[in-house]
Amino acid sequence: MAGNTFGTLFKLSTFGESHGVAIGGVLDGCPAGIELNLEAIQKDLDRRKPGQSAIVTQRKEPDTVEFYSGIFEGKTTGTPIGFAIHNTNQKSHDYSHIKDSYRPSHADYVYDQKYGFRDYRGGGRSSARETASRVVAGAIAKQFLGEMKINAYVSQVGGLSLDKSYQELDFSLIESNPVRCPDTDTAAKMEEYIKKIKKEGDTIGGVITCVIQNVPVGLGEPVFDKLHAELGKAMLSINAVKGFEYGSGFEGVKMKGSAHNDQFNTDGTTKTNHSGGIQGGISNGMDIYFNIAFKPVATVIQPYDTIDREGNKVTTQGKGRHDPCVVPRAVPIVEAMAALVMADYTLMNRTIKL
Amino acid sequence: MAGNTFGTLFKLSTFGESHGVAIGGVLDGCPAGIELNLEAIQKDLDRRKPGQSAIVTQRKEPDTVEFYSGIFEGKTTGTPIGFAIHNTNQKSHDYSHIKDSYRPSHADYVYDQKYGFRDYRGGGRSSARETASRVVAGAIAKQFLGEMKINAYVSQVGGLSLDKSYQELDFSLIESNPVRCPDTDTAAKMEEYIKKIKKEGDTIGGVITCVIQNVPVGLGEPVFDKLHAELGKAMLSINAVKGFEYGSGFEGVKMKGSAHNDQFNTDGTTKTNHSGGIQGGISNGMDIYFNIAFKPVATVIQPYDTIDREGNKVTTQGKGRHDPCVVPRAVPIVEAMAALVMADYTLMNRTIKL
Amino acid sequence: MAGNTFGTLFKLSTFGESHGVAIGGVLDGCPAGIELNLEAIQKDLDRRKPGQSAIVTQRKEPDTVEFYSGIFEGKTTGTPIGFAIHNTNQKSHDYSHIKDSYRPSHADYVYDQKYGFRDYRGGGRSSARETASRVVAGAIAKQFLGEMKINAYVSQVGGLSLDKSYQELDFSLIESNPVRCPDTDTAAKMEEYIKKIKKEGDTIGGVITCVIQNVPVGLGEPVFDKLHAELGKAMLSINAVKGFEYGSGFEGVKMKGSAHNDQFNTDGTTKTNHSGGIQGGISNGMDIYFNIAFKPVATVIQPYDTIDREGNKVTTQGKGRHDPCVVPRAVPIVEAMAALVMADYTLMNRTIKL
Amino acid sequence: MAGNTFGTLFKLSTFGESHGVAIGGVLDGCPAGIELNLEAIQKDLDRRKPGQSAIVTQRKEPDTVEFYSGIFEGKTTGTPIGFAIHNTNQKSHDYSHIKDSYRPSHADYVYDQKYGFRDYRGGGRSSARETASRVVAGAIAKQFLGEMKINAYVSQVGGLSLDKSYQELDFSLIESNPVRCPDTDTAAKMEEYIKKIKKEGDTIGGVITCVIQNVPVGLGEPVFDKLHAELGKAMLSINAVKGFEYGSGFEGVKMKGSAHNDQFNTDGTTKTNHSGGIQGGISNGMDIYFNIAFKPVATVIQPYDTIDREGNKVTTQGKGRHDPCVVPRAVPIVEAMAALVMADYTLMNRTIKL
Repeated sequence: MAGNTFGTLFKLSTFGESHGVAIGGVLDGCPAGIELNLEAIQKDLDRRKPGQSAIVTQRKEPDTVEFYSGIFEGKTTGTPIGFAIHNTNQKSHDYSHIKDSYRPSHADYVYDQKYGFRDYRGGGRSSARETASRVVAGAIAKQFLGEMKINAYVSQVGGLSLDKSYQELDFSLIESNPVRCPDTDTAAKMEEYIKKIKKEGDTIGGVITCVIQNVPVGLGEPVFDKLHAELGKAMLSINAVKGFEYGSGFEGVKMKGSAHNDQFNTDGTTKTNHSGGIQGGISNGMDIYFNIAFKPVATVIQPYDTIDREGNKVTTQGKGRHDPCVVPRAVPIVEAMAALVMADYTLMNRTIKL
Repeated sequence: MAGNTFGTLFKLSTFGESHGVAIGGVLDGCPAGIELNLEAIQKDLDRRKPGQSAIVTQRKEPDTVEFYSGIFEGKTTGTPIGFAIHNTNQKSHDYSHIKDSYRPSHADYVYDQKYGFRDYRGGGRSSARETASRVVAGAIAKQFLGEMKINAYVSQVGGLSLDKSYQELDFSLIESNPVRCPDTDTAAKMEEYIKKIKKEGDTIGGVITCVIQNVPVGLGEPVFDKLHAELGKAMLSINAVKGFEYGSGFEGVKMKGSAHNDQFNTDGTTKTNHSGGIQGGISNGMDIYFNIAFKPVATVIQPYDTIDREGNKVTTQGKGRHDPCVVPRAVPIVEAMAALVMADYTLMNRTIKL
Repeated sequence: MAGNTFGTLFKLSTFGESHGVAIGGVLDGCPAGIELNLEAIQKDLDRRKPGQSAIVTQRKEPDTVEFYSGIFEGKTTGTPIGFAIHNTNQKSHDYSHIKDSYRPSHADYVYDQKYGFRDYRGGGRSSARETASRVVAGAIAKQFLGEMKINAYVSQVGGLSLDKSYQELDFSLIESNPVRCPDTDTAAKMEEYIKKIKKEGDTIGGVITCVIQNVPVGLGEPVFDKLHAELGKAMLSINAVKGFEYGSGFEGVKMKGSAHNDQFNTDGTTKTNHSGGIQGGISNGMDIYFNIAFKPVATVIQPYDTIDREGNKVTTQGKGRHDPCVVPRAVPIVEAMAALVMADYTLMNRTIKL
Repeated sequence: MAGNTFGTLFKLSTFGESHGVAIGGVLDGCPAGIELNLEAIQKDLDRRKPGQSAIVTQRKEPDTVEFYSGIFEGKTTGTPIGFAIHNTNQKSHDYSHIKDSYRPSHADYVYDQKYGFRDYRGGGRSSARETASRVVAGAIAKQFLGEMKINAYVSQVGGLSLDKSYQELDFSLIESNPVRCPDTDTAAKMEEYIKKIKKEGDTIGGVITCVIQNVPVGLGEPVFDKLHAELGKAMLSINAVKGFEYGSGFEGVKMKGSAHNDQFNTDGTTKTNHSGGIQGGISNGMDIYFNIAFKPVATVIQPYDTIDREGNKVTTQGKGRHDPCVVPRAVPIVEAMAALVMADYTLMNRTIKL
């Protein structure tokens, strides 16, 4: 319970530090009989990997996943799927600026305080590199989910917001630009803006919107394990996330009940969907949609003041190859976490009736 | 794992329907040796109970908690604390308008779809009445936490927003008005507005802000069980919640990293607190603060169209005594869930070093 | 995780001390739609209750269960089933002999050491009275399991052993005598022996055999959650249990593999059943059978030497109304725990294939 | 929850099939700051590995463990320890005799029935090869436990039983012979007997006794998670185990309470130890000891009749290099599982008092 396991029945346990030997995980509870498309898994990894475009970190990490178990003759066997991604980038870097001082708004200080010391190389366990393992498991979950479709995209970068609802967008355009915003015009502006920020050695935040379609009615476990509560936890567990809202979200606060209530059609669907596809914590068959706020990346390529382990003031300089904006690469991570939740709750829902 | 348990070590399991015999719970893992102030527990229950002011539901439910076990000679024994709150309001009501038709944006439809049938009386398990059990357990958690202070208050009702940071507020005023907003002027406006909404037979949403102070450094379990991820899940599991953000939240998206980063003082505290007291999922000793969005209550006292179990259109009329705005009564629930998380993570943190 | 919850999906959390207000529990994850026979539940409770015959404790406890939730119109709703059994026997007894000194081979000493103090009245949480809650939940599990049949019986009391395999016995005779041994002659000898032991103010151990029939193939979760491992834990969690063996058990150690192996019939059944119905931790459709060893009850009605909290020697005298042999009343507890395991693993098995 | 995770706080998740790419695991919750002796870990692995003596299987598997994470500068960091043991023996064997027919008393049949198909190479996930991952994690647990000493040894092979209590034995002799029986004379007889059995192409069962010393008072979580219940489950989860008893065990059944009760010394220790170091599920500071029954290995090197997937009778011939008796190699596995339980319960016990 030291927090490296996600899910109850479809259950991922991950391991690995940024610059250790390897990262990876064990996916337990994945049902037997899924014909796995391994290329699709690698493809999702490639969407997350560094160096894929000019607006992300230029580190080179091939991020090739090796599967160790749980797959036989192309199908999942129902036994745990062990996998690893070896770190190829783990050589003798210069970490002196990190080793003895604390980067502001990073986890350096709290890790030292909590555990007594830390693997300081590249952020160690607190590095977002860990999320590659989530993408592997999430890609398997997607294949289990079949017809259920999960699409995430960038809907805001800094103050640049995409002012269209997801219904007005063509999801097939998400991968058409490096920002992963399906509105080409807005994407271009965002890209431009990220490049400008990068040139300043600074970083900027963003919002990702995720939409889950073809959801059966009935997923979600009241009371504490409401579907949106688990989705919220899943998203908030991703590095740099500061907020989560689904359906009408924070804006819905201003609405009156008479306007907010989603009226039924005779087939059980609703005329509006302020509920965001979830009522009482249980999916109602309408699209599930939610927004996730990401703060600006803490690593800026600028000089900054901070303290060392003994509390002395030090001045240091951010360096390395970092993302000026995390959201383009976080899109597949959001999808992966959503897929893990939906897979877990799909299995759970098999157990609730006589 | 049907979702009625919260927490890993400090663990609450609840039961009970709105109009069944009783609601209650089992709190397991509460450490031995806490001298319990039972009046403080009942006081928190009273802050949640119906009928306490003119702007909440006028139902009469005394909500008296009975403890069955786990307390001996005034102290917790380390064994599970069983408790119940008998429903005194469970008589023969007229539920015909609920029994055979689905209230829009309630859980009626999804419960029927998921479980095959439902206890329709007063919403059954999906009723917010269930949260009284959380308040009991949360009040015990608060006493375990000692010096750690948890204060929640209403910061928005509809479009009326409190434009002060929590640092500018006097928490001792929270209970001075029925809205539970510590700014007296804003509270008066909110109260007026809620009364107007009530007169219309309508409802309105709101935001609660919660602040946790005197937090030790080191609470939070990376990777999946980050402190804010668990707080987020806890809040999203409360009825009617649509969003959660902590620290800089959704607004922080627009900031640059150079401005968002919290610079260190030499004692490890930070000059700003955009991080909201949590870095890398672990508390850094600064105040933790977060906002929770509540949608407008779905029950409006107006006629509305809906469908019955067979999918036929029906017109019905909302009735009964319902909250025009849920946030005033939700304040102690938010505190309770925050306390459960902090208690659980406090215990967890005892296990992480040699 | 303080140990008062059993099961993963069909999950019981219990509370309650021997002489507190009430004992009870929350059964979460029980599927919706089971038409509950409440009399059958009370009947199992009556099989466990004190005072039912001359060879068990003569305490008077009616043990009437009250259900608080989770049942509507006679059926389980899928929401948690809360229940309580009020302690009617909780008046001002004289506990001075227990309060300040430690009964040998009881939990008095370890509770004080672990928790700092204890509810000493009647053993508190360590009393076997707690098992009544298990019987309630187990009786519900039995009704969920339908055709699967669970029968337990006394197969040994002290040195008196029933030398017949379960196949030679008529389970309908189990309830025909107070010992709950289906062989009438042996039962009579056992009864006589227990009476003699009781007259001496002493106690004696025993063995219960449990047989589960009509088990589908496939229940059990390798690796750590093998079906027999969970059954073993379930049985070892019952007060006074010292051992568990299934199938060929400790005797099977002496056999050669060529003799021990269960040869297949063409329908997948086996010619012998040394495996005890479980292979590789998974049920193979044959009868599951196992033995459980119970030590002699620690409370003897004789004077004995012991120590007080300060480590001073004291001489005291066992008193009260206690069981001379625990196995007759433990039969329904064994069945209940077996039913909880089988129900949990039945649900789990629904999630393992695409 | 598909059963590949053991422990609540000190938590091992394993993966891997006998003839897949690798086996391994993730150990989460291991406290930070343990200076790991990696050689000691490998040494325990070597005690389990095939080919170490004439009385065990002659397969050649080096079983070298690689650590991927969670260790930095020689110490555990508190983050998950990922590790793998690559299978070097995974080449193109002839599995035709296993692939299409079911070996009696193996898991072949039940895996096919449960999951629809299976990785038949060398038993796949049901192979005892999986236990190597347990030995790795257990060896780490031992180092965490410090002064607590865990010693297991062979006390019976077939009908040859070691008629000495553990107090009469010198544990330093356990590793002095290939049987791992600390009584040299008995060991010689056992070795002879196993060689004879092997020559017959047959197999034989055995008993392992385990003793845990220097145990603090207070480990164990009533009610369901009693210390011996978890130890029992841990042992019963090991391949081929059919029974578990602790303290007086099955023999204690025959004793009277007056003789069985362990009288106190004034320091809280007891004059006898029929309780086996555990009372009410909680350690009382005396030695913990228990016996584990292992059935004869199912693979015999003889011709046998069985059925294929379609239920046709087939005659086949056991082949390969298998253990004639599993207990000598199971000794380190027993110790590992005991260490995992004791580590987990040590952490749990830190959370139970104010």
